[in-house]
Amino acid sequence: MNNQTTNAAEHQIIKQMINIWTAQNKVVTDFFNKHPDEVYTKEVAPGRNRPIYLFGHLIGASDGMIPLLGIGERHYPQLEAVFLASPDNASATMPSMPELKEMWNTVNTTLTNHFNTMQPSDWLDRHTKVSPEDFAKEPHRNKLNILLTRTNHLSYHSGQLNLLSK
Amino acid sequence: MNNQTTNAAEHQIIKQMINIWTAQNKVVTDFFNKHPDEVYTKEVAPGRNRPIYLFGHLIGASDGMIPLLGIGERHYPQLEAVFLASPDNASATMPSMPELKEMWNTVNTTLTNHFNTMQPSDWLDRHTKVSPEDFAKEPHRNKLNILLTRTNHLSYHSGQLNLLSK
Repeated sequence: MNNQTTNAAEHQIIKQMINIWTAQNKVVTDFFNKHPDEVYTKEVAPGRNRPIYLFGHLIGASDGMIPLLGIGERHYPQLEAVFLASPDNASATMPSMPELKEMWNTVNTTLTNHFNTMQPSDWLDRHTKVSPEDFAKEPHRNKLNILLTRTNHLSYHSGQLNLLSK
Repeated sequence: MNNQTTNAAEHQIIKQMINIWTAQNKVVTDFFNKHPDEVYTKEVAPGRNRPIYLFGHLIGASDGMIPLLGIGERHYPQLEAVFLASPDNASATMPSMPELKEMWNTVNTTLTNHFNTMQPSDWLDRHTKVSPEDFAKEPHRNKLNILLTRTNHLSYHSGQLNLLSK
């Protein structure tokens, strides 16, 4: 293979990863657009996370990609306490479903716009939570790994959402 | 970047994808090794797939990767009718948990051994269910896409397994 071919191959691989991330986001978007908002705030069973909690959890996780990828600060740091550091709690103060939907779209737009500017070498560079020394020993701790693991995180909770709504 | 660097980059990217597939398989393996076998065959609630069904479903899906990647024939075609073409049915004849665990290990060993022989260009080649003509128009229908989508499929059902066992 010549240089151009291998670069084309890398672009192809990374494009496919981004497309699968985008597809998993669409599954979540479609899920929360399917029913009236109140359906997602109901307790399904004791000890089960409500869909609204999982939605906030996924927004918080995607928002956390913004600093990890070195794009900037989290848009909604207030989500961390309620949706990342704590389990679901029906008496906690949460944003409304319309507010969460707007946050979801804003975070995904920021990420998607940034992905469109990234070159393969950017994806292979270290994410912001690993030191240059550790990265030298563990080259998989790159930005691509954030994308791959967060895509699987979306799938993991999509499976749960689908089960909860049945 | 010179040729060697870009090839190293491709190897790195593909290695990370395989590692995440392997990690998701380990989540499933650990889940089914956690409790006595009878825990996984119980009906959790009406209309919910039992863990044993989801296990067979995941084995059948991974077994289906063998022909899709052009490695050979499915090891256990008998799983298709019960676990892929039909929903869970407590009165269906199913392999036992020890039998399923052996199938899971065998399929994953076949796949892992084959992955270790594959070069980046093999991953970018078409999978066996797409024609050369369609592949020319849709280059994402390659073997890598099978790996990525099946990894997310594992995560999707891992989320459900975790919820069912609570």
